[in-house]
Amino acid sequence: MKIITVSREFGSGGRELGRRLADAMDIAYYDREIIDKIAENLKMDSQYIENVLSHGYIRQYPYTFRRRFRFPEKEADQYPNLLAEQTKIIRDLAGKEDCVIVGRGADVLLQNYCPFKIFVYADLESKIRRCRQLAPEEEHLSDREMEQKMKRIDKARASDYSLISSQKWGDKGYYHLCVNTAGLEITSIVPFIAEYASYWLALNQQEKR
Amino acid sequence: MKIITVSREFGSGGRELGRRLADAMDIAYYDREIIDKIAENLKMDSQYIENVLSHGYIRQYPYTFRRRFRFPEKEADQYPNLLAEQTKIIRDLAGKEDCVIVGRGADVLLQNYCPFKIFVYADLESKIRRCRQLAPEEEHLSDREMEQKMKRIDKARASDYSLISSQKWGDKGYYHLCVNTAGLEITSIVPFIAEYASYWLALNQQEKR
Repeated sequence: MKIITVSREFGSGGRELGRRLADAMDIAYYDREIIDKIAENLKMDSQYIENVLSHGYIRQYPYTFRRRFRFPEKEADQYPNLLAEQTKIIRDLAGKEDCVIVGRGADVLLQNYCPFKIFVYADLESKIRRCRQLAPEEEHLSDREMEQKMKRIDKARASDYSLISSQKWGDKGYYHLCVNTAGLEITSIVPFIAEYASYWLALNQQEKR
Repeated sequence: MKIITVSREFGSGGRELGRRLADAMDIAYYDREIIDKIAENLKMDSQYIENVLSHGYIRQYPYTFRRRFRFPEKEADQYPNLLAEQTKIIRDLAGKEDCVIVGRGADVLLQNYCPFKIFVYADLESKIRRCRQLAPEEEHLSDREMEQKMKRIDKARASDYSLISSQKWGDKGYYHLCVNTAGLEITSIVPFIAEYASYWLALNQQEKR
Protein backbone atom coordinates (compact mmCIF):
# COMPACT_ATOMS: atom_id res chain seq x y z
CA MET A 1 0.00 0.00 0.00
CA LYS A 2 1.43 3.37 -1.03
CA ILE A 3 0.23 6.11 1.27
CA ILE A 4 1.70 9.61 1.22
CA THR A 5 0.71 12.25 3.74
CA VAL A 6 1.39 15.92 3.16
CA SER A 7 1.40 18.24 6.17
CA ARG A 8 1.95 21.88 5.42
CA GLU A 9 2.14 25.44 6.64
CA PHE A 10 -0.65 27.63 5.30
CA GLY A 11 0.51 29.31 2.07
CA SER A 12 3.46 26.99 1.46
CA GLY A 13 1.86 25.29 -1.54
CA GLY A 14 1.48 21.95 0.23
CA ARG A 15 -2.02 21.32 -1.06
CA GLU A 16 -0.94 21.90 -4.68
CA LEU A 17 2.10 19.70 -4.09
CA GLY A 18 -0.11 16.90 -2.76
CA ARG A 19 -2.48 17.08 -5.69
CA ARG A 20 0.25 17.15 -8.31
CA LEU A 21 2.16 14.40 -6.55
CA ALA A 22 -0.90 12.14 -6.74
CA ASP A 23 -1.21 12.97 -10.46
CA ALA A 24 2.47 12.27 -11.10
CA MET A 25 2.31 8.94 -9.26
CA ASP A 26 -1.09 8.10 -10.71
CA ILE A 27 -2.70 7.44 -7.34
CA ALA A 28 -5.79 8.88 -5.62
CA TYR A 29 -5.81 12.29 -3.96
CA TYR A 30 -7.93 13.12 -0.92
CA ASP A 31 -8.43 16.50 0.66
CA ARG A 32 -11.80 18.25 0.31
CA GLU A 33 -13.18 14.87 -0.82
CA ILE A 34 -12.98 13.83 2.82
CA ILE A 35 -15.27 16.69 3.83
CA ASP A 36 -17.77 15.73 1.11
CA LYS A 37 -17.74 12.16 2.36
CA ILE A 38 -18.43 13.27 5.96
CA ALA A 39 -21.29 15.42 4.64
CA GLU A 40 -22.70 12.47 2.75
CA ASN A 41 -22.42 10.06 5.68
CA LEU A 42 -23.86 12.45 8.26
CA LYS A 43 -26.26 14.17 5.88
CA MET A 44 -24.90 17.60 6.73
CA ASP A 45 -23.76 20.57 4.66
CA SER A 46 -20.13 20.24 3.56
CA GLN A 47 -19.37 23.96 3.89
CA TYR A 48 -20.64 23.82 7.47
CA ILE A 49 -18.40 20.81 8.20
CA GLU A 50 -15.40 22.54 6.66
CA ASN A 51 -16.05 25.55 8.89
CA VAL A 52 -16.36 23.53 12.07
CA LEU A 53 -13.25 21.44 11.36
CA SER A 54 -11.14 24.46 10.53
CA HIS A 55 -12.25 26.24 13.74
CA GLY A 56 -10.89 23.57 16.01
CA TYR A 57 -8.74 26.19 17.63
CA ILE A 58 -11.60 27.85 19.48
CA ARG A 59 -11.18 25.17 22.12
CA GLN A 60 -8.13 27.14 23.15
CA TYR A 61 -10.27 29.95 24.54
CA PRO A 62 -12.12 29.69 27.85
CA TYR A 63 -15.89 29.47 27.74
CA THR A 64 -16.45 32.99 29.15
CA PHE A 65 -14.22 34.48 26.47
CA ARG A 66 -15.90 32.53 23.68
CA ARG A 67 -19.31 33.63 24.96
CA ARG A 68 -18.33 37.27 25.22
CA PHE A 69 -17.07 37.36 21.66
CA ARG A 70 -19.90 35.20 20.38
CA PHE A 71 -17.88 32.25 19.15
CA PRO A 72 -20.25 29.77 17.50
CA GLU A 73 -20.78 27.53 20.50
CA LYS A 74 -22.91 25.03 18.63
CA GLU A 75 -20.17 24.43 16.08
CA ALA A 76 -17.65 23.82 18.82
CA ASP A 77 -19.99 21.14 20.18
CA GLN A 78 -20.06 19.40 16.82
CA TYR A 79 -16.29 19.33 16.61
CA PRO A 80 -15.54 15.96 18.30
CA ASN A 81 -18.23 14.14 16.31
CA LEU A 82 -16.99 15.45 13.00
CA LEU A 83 -13.40 14.67 13.93
CA ALA A 84 -14.35 11.08 14.76
CA GLU A 85 -16.17 10.69 11.44
CA GLN A 86 -13.20 12.20 9.61
CA THR A 87 -10.84 9.70 11.26
CA LYS A 88 -13.05 6.80 10.22
CA ILE A 89 -13.25 8.04 6.63
CA ILE A 90 -9.51 8.65 6.31
CA ARG A 91 -8.79 5.12 7.51
CA ASP A 92 -11.43 3.67 5.18
CA LEU A 93 -10.04 5.50 2.15
CA ALA A 94 -6.43 4.56 2.88
CA GLY A 95 -7.43 0.94 3.34
CA LYS A 96 -8.93 0.83 -0.13
CA GLU A 97 -6.25 2.24 -2.41
CA ASP A 98 -2.89 3.98 -2.74
CA CYS A 99 -3.35 7.68 -2.11
CA VAL A 100 -2.03 11.10 -1.14
CA ILE A 101 -3.83 12.75 1.78
CA VAL A 102 -3.22 16.41 2.62
CA GLY A 103 -3.45 17.56 6.24
CA ARG A 104 -6.11 16.33 8.69
CA GLY A 105 -3.57 14.51 10.87
CA ALA A 106 -3.48 11.67 8.33
CA ASP A 107 0.21 11.06 9.10
CA VAL A 108 -0.78 10.05 12.63
CA LEU A 109 -4.07 8.33 11.82
CA LEU A 110 -2.47 6.15 9.14
CA GLN A 111 0.67 5.27 11.08
CA ASN A 112 -0.09 1.55 10.64
CA TYR A 113 0.22 1.87 6.87
CA CYS A 114 3.77 3.21 7.27
CA PRO A 115 3.09 6.29 5.07
CA PHE A 116 5.73 8.48 3.48
CA LYS A 117 5.36 11.70 5.44
CA ILE A 118 6.17 15.05 3.88
CA PHE A 119 6.15 18.46 5.55
CA VAL A 120 5.98 21.52 3.29
CA TYR A 121 6.97 24.96 4.57
CA ALA A 122 8.40 28.31 3.49
CA ASP A 123 9.40 31.68 4.88
CA LEU A 124 6.68 34.22 5.62
CA GLU A 125 7.37 36.43 2.60
CA SER A 126 7.08 33.55 0.13
CA LYS A 127 3.90 32.33 1.77
CA ILE A 128 2.30 35.77 1.58
CA ARG A 129 3.26 36.00 -2.11
CA ARG A 130 1.75 32.58 -2.83
CA CYS A 131 -1.45 33.46 -0.93
CA ARG A 132 -1.86 36.68 -2.91
CA GLN A 133 -1.61 34.74 -6.17
CA LEU A 134 -4.34 32.35 -5.07
CA ALA A 135 -6.57 34.72 -3.09
CA PRO A 136 -10.14 35.34 -4.31
CA GLU A 137 -10.51 38.74 -5.95
CA GLU A 138 -12.73 40.06 -3.19
CA GLU A 139 -10.08 39.41 -0.52
CA HIS A 140 -8.19 42.59 0.32
CA LEU A 141 -5.93 41.75 3.24
CA SER A 142 -2.86 43.77 4.16
CA ASP A 143 0.41 41.87 4.64
CA ARG A 144 -0.09 42.18 8.38
CA GLU A 145 -3.63 40.77 8.19
CA MET A 146 -2.46 37.99 5.88
CA GLU A 147 0.29 37.11 8.36
CA GLN A 148 -2.20 37.00 11.22
CA LYS A 149 -4.53 34.77 9.22
CA MET A 150 -1.66 32.37 8.45
CA LYS A 151 -0.55 32.21 12.04
CA ARG A 152 -4.12 31.60 13.21
CA ILE A 153 -4.61 28.73 10.77
CA ASP A 154 -1.26 27.10 11.50
CA LYS A 155 -1.92 27.47 15.21
CA ALA A 156 -5.25 25.69 14.77
CA ARG A 157 -3.50 22.91 12.82
CA ALA A 158 -0.89 22.51 15.53
CA SER A 159 -3.57 22.49 18.18
CA ASP A 160 -5.69 19.88 16.37
CA TYR A 161 -2.58 17.79 15.87
CA SER A 162 -1.86 17.82 19.59
CA LEU A 163 -5.20 16.07 20.14
CA ILE A 164 -3.99 12.96 18.34
CA SER A 165 -0.21 13.01 18.70
CA SER A 166 2.40 13.60 21.37
CA GLN A 167 4.70 14.91 18.62
CA LYS A 168 4.85 18.58 17.85
CA TRP A 169 3.25 19.56 14.54
CA GLY A 170 5.96 20.54 12.08
CA ASP A 171 8.84 19.05 14.10
CA LYS A 172 11.09 17.71 11.32
CA GLY A 173 12.04 14.55 13.22
CA TYR A 174 8.58 13.20 12.66
CA TYR A 175 8.59 13.53 8.84
CA HIS A 176 10.60 11.74 6.17
CA LEU A 177 11.19 14.78 4.00
CA CYS A 178 10.75 18.47 4.75
CA VAL A 179 10.58 20.71 1.70
CA ASN A 180 11.07 24.47 1.75
CA THR A 181 9.11 25.82 -1.23
CA ALA A 182 10.39 29.41 -1.01
CA GLY A 183 10.91 30.73 -4.54
CA LEU A 184 10.03 27.40 -6.16
CA GLU A 185 7.31 26.43 -8.60
CA ILE A 186 5.47 23.43 -7.19
CA THR A 187 5.11 21.88 -10.66
CA SER A 188 8.90 21.82 -11.03
CA ILE A 189 9.71 20.04 -7.80
CA VAL A 190 7.00 17.39 -8.02
CA PRO A 191 8.99 15.00 -10.27
CA PHE A 192 11.88 14.83 -7.74
CA ILE A 193 9.58 14.31 -4.81
CA ALA A 194 7.56 11.68 -6.65
CA GLU A 195 10.75 9.75 -7.41
CA TYR A 196 11.98 10.03 -3.84
CA ALA A 197 8.61 8.96 -2.42
CA SER A 198 8.41 5.99 -4.81
CA TYR A 199 11.88 4.84 -3.79
CA TRP A 200 11.08 5.25 -0.09
CA LEU A 201 7.76 3.42 -0.33
CA ALA A 202 9.20 0.54 -2.36
CA LEU A 203 12.00 0.11 0.19
CA ASN A 204 9.70 0.17 3.18
CA GLN A 205 7.24 -2.24 1.62
CA GLN A 206 10.08 -4.63 0.89
CA GLU A 207 11.11 -4.47 4.53
CA LYS A 208 7.62 -5.19 5.77
CA ARG A 209 7.39 -8.38 3.72
CA MET B 1 28.53 29.44 -8.40
CA LYS B 2 27.09 26.17 -7.11
CA ILE B 3 27.58 25.83 -3.38
CA ILE B 4 25.87 23.13 -1.33
CA THR B 5 26.12 23.00 2.43
CA VAL B 6 25.28 19.88 4.41
CA SER B 7 24.48 20.23 8.09
CA ARG B 8 23.81 17.02 9.93
CA GLU B 9 23.10 15.26 13.16
CA PHE B 10 25.91 12.97 14.27
CA GLY B 11 25.29 9.46 12.92
CA SER B 12 22.72 10.51 10.32
CA GLY B 13 25.02 9.82 7.37
CA GLY B 14 25.30 13.48 6.42
CA ARG B 15 29.03 13.34 5.79
CA GLU B 16 28.65 10.39 3.43
CA LEU B 17 25.75 12.14 1.72
CA GLY B 18 27.85 15.26 1.20
CA ARG B 19 30.76 13.33 -0.28
CA ARG B 20 28.60 11.27 -2.61
CA LEU B 21 26.60 14.32 -3.64
CA ALA B 22 29.81 16.07 -4.69
CA ASP B 23 30.79 12.97 -6.69
CA ALA B 24 27.39 12.74 -8.35
CA MET B 25 27.44 16.42 -9.30
CA ASP B 26 31.12 16.33 -10.21
CA ILE B 27 32.07 19.24 -7.96
CA ALA B 28 34.62 19.61 -5.14
CA TYR B 29 34.03 18.26 -1.65
CA TYR B 30 35.43 19.89 1.48
CA ASP B 31 35.34 18.55 4.99
CA ARG B 32 38.53 17.31 6.61
CA GLU B 33 40.38 19.11 3.79
CA ILE B 34 39.54 22.33 5.60
CA ILE B 35 41.35 21.12 8.72
CA ASP B 36 44.40 20.17 6.65
CA LYS B 37 44.40 23.62 5.11
CA ILE B 38 44.27 25.32 8.52
CA ALA B 39 47.15 23.09 9.64
CA GLU B 40 49.16 24.06 6.57
CA ASN B 41 48.49 27.79 6.93
CA LEU B 42 49.18 27.93 10.67
CA LYS B 43 51.86 25.24 10.63
CA MET B 44 50.10 23.22 13.30
CA ASP B 45 49.17 19.57 13.64
CA SER B 46 45.87 18.75 11.92
CA GLN B 47 44.76 16.20 14.54
CA TYR B 48 45.31 18.84 17.20
CA ILE B 49 43.21 21.35 15.24
CA GLU B 50 40.44 18.81 14.71
CA ASN B 51 40.38 18.18 18.47
CA VAL B 52 40.20 21.84 19.39
CA LEU B 53 37.51 22.64 16.86
CA SER B 54 35.35 19.70 17.89
CA HIS B 55 35.64 20.70 21.58
CA GLY B 56 34.08 24.09 21.07
CA TYR B 57 31.41 23.17 23.53
CA ILE B 58 33.69 23.43 26.55
CA ARG B 59 33.04 27.17 26.51
CA GLN B 60 29.68 26.28 27.98
CA TYR B 61 31.26 25.38 31.30
CA PRO B 62 32.47 27.97 33.79
CA TYR B 63 36.21 28.31 34.29
CA THR B 64 36.19 26.79 37.80
CA PHE B 65 34.36 23.72 36.52
CA ARG B 66 36.70 23.30 33.58
CA ARG B 67 39.68 23.63 35.91
CA ARG B 68 38.33 21.13 38.41
CA PHE B 69 37.76 18.53 35.72
CA ARG B 70 40.98 19.36 33.89
CA PHE B 71 39.51 20.51 30.63
CA PRO B 72 42.35 21.33 28.22
CA GLU B 73 42.51 25.05 28.93
CA LYS B 74 45.17 25.74 26.33
CA GLU B 75 43.04 24.24 23.59
CA ALA B 76 40.08 26.35 24.59
CA ASP B 77 42.31 29.41 24.21
CA GLN B 78 43.21 28.40 20.66
CA TYR B 79 39.59 27.99 19.71
CA PRO B 80 38.78 31.54 18.48
CA ASN B 81 41.94 31.73 16.36
CA LEU B 82 41.29 28.43 14.67
CA LEU B 83 37.66 29.32 14.08
CA ALA B 84 38.69 32.58 12.42
CA GLU B 85 41.17 30.75 10.18
CA GLN B 86 38.53 28.16 9.32
CA THR B 87 36.09 30.91 8.32
CA LYS B 88 38.68 32.49 6.05
CA ILE B 89 39.50 29.17 4.40
CA ILE B 90 35.87 28.20 3.85
CA ARG B 91 35.21 31.54 2.14
CA ASP B 92 38.36 31.22 0.03
CA LEU B 93 37.49 27.72 -1.12
CA ALA B 94 33.89 28.59 -1.98
CA GLY B 95 35.05 31.63 -3.92
CA LYS B 96 37.23 29.47 -6.14
CA GLU B 97 34.97 26.67 -7.31
CA ASP B 98 31.61 24.90 -7.03
CA CYS B 99 31.63 22.67 -3.97
CA VAL B 100 29.88 20.74 -1.23
CA ILE B 101 30.90 21.67 2.31
CA VAL B 102 29.85 19.53 5.27
CA GLY B 103 29.27 21.18 8.64
CA ARG B 104 31.47 23.96 10.07
CA GLY B 105 28.68 26.55 9.85
CA ALA B 106 29.34 26.90 6.11
CA ASP B 107 25.65 27.56 5.50
CA VAL B 108 25.97 30.78 7.49
CA LEU B 109 29.48 31.75 6.42
CA LEU B 110 28.64 31.39 2.73
CA GLN B 111 25.25 33.08 2.86
CA ASN B 112 26.38 35.56 0.17
CA TYR B 113 26.81 32.73 -2.33
CA CYS B 114 23.15 31.72 -1.86
CA PRO B 115 24.01 28.06 -1.17
CA PHE B 116 21.58 25.16 -1.32
CA LYS B 117 21.29 24.18 2.33
CA ILE B 118 20.54 20.62 3.36
CA PHE B 119 19.95 19.28 6.84
CA VAL B 120 20.33 15.54 7.39
CA TYR B 121 18.83 13.81 10.42
CA ALA B 122 17.39 10.53 11.66
CA ASP B 123 15.87 8.94 14.73
CA LEU B 124 18.16 7.81 17.53
CA GLU B 125 17.90 4.10 16.77
CA SER B 126 18.92 4.54 13.11
CA LYS B 127 21.80 6.79 14.07
CA ILE B 128 23.12 4.28 16.60
CA ARG B 129 22.89 1.54 13.97
CA ARG B 130 24.78 3.64 11.45
CA CYS B 131 27.45 4.54 14.01
CA ARG B 132 27.99 0.87 14.88
CA GLN B 133 28.56 0.07 11.21
CA LEU B 134 31.19 2.77 10.91
CA ALA B 135 32.79 2.57 14.37
CA PRO B 136 36.46 1.56 14.65
CA GLU B 137 36.89 -2.00 15.87
CA GLU B 138 38.39 -0.92 19.17
CA GLU B 139 35.33 1.17 20.08
CA HIS B 140 33.06 -0.71 22.45
CA LEU B 141 30.34 1.72 23.50
CA SER B 142 27.01 0.63 24.90
CA ASP B 143 23.88 2.08 23.30
CA ARG B 144 23.59 4.44 26.24
CA GLU B 145 27.20 5.62 25.85
CA MET B 146 26.73 5.98 22.10
CA GLU B 147 23.63 8.07 22.70
CA GLN B 148 25.50 10.30 25.14
CA LYS B 149 28.35 10.76 22.66
CA MET B 150 25.89 11.74 19.93
CA LYS B 151 24.11 14.22 22.12
CA ARG B 152 27.41 15.75 23.26
CA ILE B 153 28.60 16.22 19.67
CA ASP B 154 25.31 17.64 18.40
CA LYS B 155 25.18 19.96 21.40
CA ALA B 156 28.67 21.21 20.54
CA ARG B 157 27.58 21.77 16.94
CA ALA B 158 24.50 23.71 18.05
CA SER B 159 26.60 25.74 20.44
CA ASP B 160 29.23 26.57 17.80
CA TYR B 161 26.47 27.50 15.41
CA SER B 162 25.01 29.96 17.90
CA LEU B 163 28.32 31.88 17.77
CA ILE B 164 27.73 32.82 14.13
CA SER B 165 23.96 32.72 13.67
CA SER B 166 20.84 33.91 15.44
CA GLN B 167 19.04 30.90 13.92
CA LYS B 168 18.76 27.67 15.86
CA TRP B 169 20.91 24.84 14.52
CA GLY B 170 18.67 22.23 12.90
CA ASP B 171 15.58 24.46 12.73
CA LYS B 172 14.05 23.37 9.42
CA GLY B 173 12.99 26.89 8.41
CA TYR B 174 16.59 27.75 7.78
CA TYR B 175 17.32 24.92 5.32
CA HIS B 176 16.02 24.24 1.82
CA LEU B 177 15.64 20.50 2.24
CA CYS B 178 15.62 18.35 5.37
CA VAL B 179 16.22 14.67 4.79
CA ASN B 180 15.43 11.92 7.28
CA THR B 181 17.84 9.07 6.50
CA ALA B 182 16.25 6.50 8.84
CA GLY B 183 16.35 3.10 7.14
CA LEU B 184 17.80 4.49 3.91
CA GLU B 185 21.01 3.75 2.07
CA ILE B 186 22.78 7.03 1.41
CA THR B 187 23.95 5.84 -2.01
CA SER B 188 20.34 5.32 -3.09
CA ILE B 189 19.03 8.76 -2.19
CA VAL B 190 21.95 10.75 -3.61
CA PRO B 191 20.64 10.81 -7.22
CA PHE B 192 17.34 12.40 -6.14
CA ILE B 193 19.02 14.97 -3.96
CA ALA B 194 21.58 15.79 -6.65
CA GLU B 195 18.76 16.42 -9.14
CA TYR B 196 16.83 18.55 -6.68
CA ALA B 197 19.91 20.56 -5.73
CA SER B 198 20.84 21.12 -9.40
CA TYR B 199 17.33 22.37 -10.15
CA TRP B 200 17.33 24.65 -7.12
CA LEU B 201 20.76 26.10 -7.86
CA ALA B 202 20.00 26.70 -11.54
CA LEU B 203 16.79 28.50 -10.60
CA ASN B 204 18.41 30.69 -7.99
CA GLN B 205 21.30 31.60 -10.25
CA GLN B 206 18.87 32.59 -12.95
CA GLU B 207 17.10 34.87 -10.48
CA LYS B 208 20.34 36.55 -9.42
CA ARG B 209 21.20 37.50 -12.99
